[in-house]
Amino acid sequence: MKYKDSGVDIDRAGKALKSAGTSIKETWGARVLSDVGAFGGLFDGAGLAKDPVLVSSIDGVGTKLKVAFASNRHDTVGQCLVNHCVNDILVQGAKPLFFLDYFATGGLEDGVLESVIGGMAKACGENGCALIAGETAEMPGLYSKGEYDLAGCIVGVVERDGVIDGSSCQPGDRLMGFASSGLHTNGYSLARMALLDEGPYEVDSRPDELGGLSVGEALLAVHRSYLGQFQAMVKAGINVKGMAHLTGGGFTDNIPRVLPDGCGVRVQRGTWQVPPIFRLIQKLGGVDEDEMHRAFNMGVGYLFIVSPEDADRVVELGLEYSIGEIGQVAQGKGVAYE
Amino acid sequence: MKYKDSGVDIDRAGKALKSAGTSIKETWGARVLSDVGAFGGLFDGAGLAKDPVLVSSIDGVGTKLKVAFASNRHDTVGQCLVNHCVNDILVQGAKPLFFLDYFATGGLEDGVLESVIGGMAKACGENGCALIAGETAEMPGLYSKGEYDLAGCIVGVVERDGVIDGSSCQPGDRLMGFASSGLHTNGYSLARMALLDEGPYEVDSRPDELGGLSVGEALLAVHRSYLGQFQAMVKAGINVKGMAHLTGGGFTDNIPRVLPDGCGVRVQRGTWQVPPIFRLIQKLGGVDEDEMHRAFNMGVGYLFIVSPEDADRVVELGLEYSIGEIGQVAQGKGVAYE
Repeated sequence: MKYKDSGVDIDRAGKALKSAGTSIKETWGARVLSDVGAFGGLFDGAGLAKDPVLVSSIDGVGTKLKVAFASNRHDTVGQCLVNHCVNDILVQGAKPLFFLDYFATGGLEDGVLESVIGGMAKACGENGCALIAGETAEMPGLYSKGEYDLAGCIVGVVERDGVIDGSSCQPGDRLMGFASSGLHTNGYSLARMALLDEGPYEVDSRPDELGGLSVGEALLAVHRSYLGQFQAMVKAGINVKGMAHLTGGGFTDNIPRVLPDGCGVRVQRGTWQVPPIFRLIQKLGGVDEDEMHRAFNMGVGYLFIVSPEDADRVVELGLEYSIGEIGQVAQGKGVAYE
Repeated sequence: MKYKDSGVDIDRAGKALKSAGTSIKETWGARVLSDVGAFGGLFDGAGLAKDPVLVSSIDGVGTKLKVAFASNRHDTVGQCLVNHCVNDILVQGAKPLFFLDYFATGGLEDGVLESVIGGMAKACGENGCALIAGETAEMPGLYSKGEYDLAGCIVGVVERDGVIDGSSCQPGDRLMGFASSGLHTNGYSLARMALLDEGPYEVDSRPDELGGLSVGEALLAVHRSYLGQFQAMVKAGINVKGMAHLTGGGFTDNIPRVLPDGCGVRVQRGTWQVPPIFRLIQKLGGVDEDEMHRAFNMGVGYLFIVSPEDADRVVELGLEYSIGEIGQVAQGKGVAYE
């Protein structure tokens, strides 16, 4: 018996990583002090802030991966993962420093790992974040051949007096919405059941409702990063009091996470356009409206909470994906829909 | 349709995390500034070192998980993961600061997540590392019911002038071995094939060779951390010139990673006791000796490279798991076995 016989090909993983090495290194600035293949990634931690707080998060992309497998398209999920992580630490005001990925598969197929890493490197580059290290695990018997899971961990930094924790939010503050590209990275198990497994479509079906997009294309739309929008607001002197990333748990579970006790929100559902993919899932799955808002972002990827005075200024900045006011902080708790 | 119908139960994951909350918080020192459930974990980054370098690594435990599933034993794999990560950044001289975990499953079963997190919290506590954040992903359709994957990311710190990169290693330096508890976390696909899938055993079989242990017990032995050994050597004034963590790739691939150009090593195979689990795998799988040393650690979990003068002092410290000298740095490249 050889190790290869058990489905683990150390040489092949090494080759794939070598081929992805250039795109990885392009994300490195002067602060990355190690090379590809070191046991740990070294990042210069001197002078990151006057009084630095490190902010970290780890996440996956859920069963969006199953859509990638069915579509044989592997260049987008890595972007989704990085942008998801960037948004998660952005909630507390942090800018990303470095990112690590975990790629586990039932068996490496030619080009797939390179595509996934390429996507991560692209998004890391866009967010000024170093793709500093990763792990490629071949786990035959846990994953099916040709399938993989993907997780990523991000570390960022924020000045201690710049940590945003929502504690200054108060009734009357405005929820300023920014559009998602689609489901981003959550709700895919429900979406796949409604559209594909128990629904009428394949990933390459093009239902009229999607305006020319295939089901696979609509479902694979890249999770957006809202780092640039935050930075533009800060630059313009807007006081961002709180933020929420609408991921697993949708509106219902995520907004309350950043509000002080005694505060809830009112959300006016009619104030933004819900992308057609959500209505298609809702119709085919017979999912009620509240459940939709707990499972999905419904077209709103990210929320900034600002004072009434700052709300107009957010709109006037004309930032990409800006939807405008979609609700208000209110006395009470939880999310009330109007 | 409800989200639950698709196999994703947000409430259940929340309950499991709540129940594990106490053990998680016990790993936190004064530097953890966030609470359970924040979007990102906050870690006080002030004064970590005079000139800090952050060292990070991400990893999994491979198909050791399949042995845990078959044994219905979930309290050890989390310890393995944390200790593995601690060793990886220790290679560059870093002490751990915080750890994040990713747990992905086909469906949560009662008590499993709590056991896994309990194991991680135990090992984090032992290594002085905060279990600061995590992600629990339910991914029906990617994982089988009752199965899960586990990944972890660690961030540590080292003074810039304390980074250990092996560059000062030179011919004549000694390889000081420290015993593993068994396979640690690699080579499990080959081991399972030889012992279980194509072999004569079940996880609860007790072959004479294992001296009373079952196959499952021998295979699940907890990956050891060598952080304490390193700290004891530094305290004793020993100049640790390089280290190697014998993980995926065994002796053959890991030792050369930390040596300067022009240096290889000679390893004297007879200088330590190879634990019986390796010989059993080798016999049943018909695996040749070189392949064994590339797939497995063969009983040596970690290596410290020191000068000939320091080698005796390492032995005299009488540290736990110390094996003594198992080889030397030599001119050339790669690993030569004697």
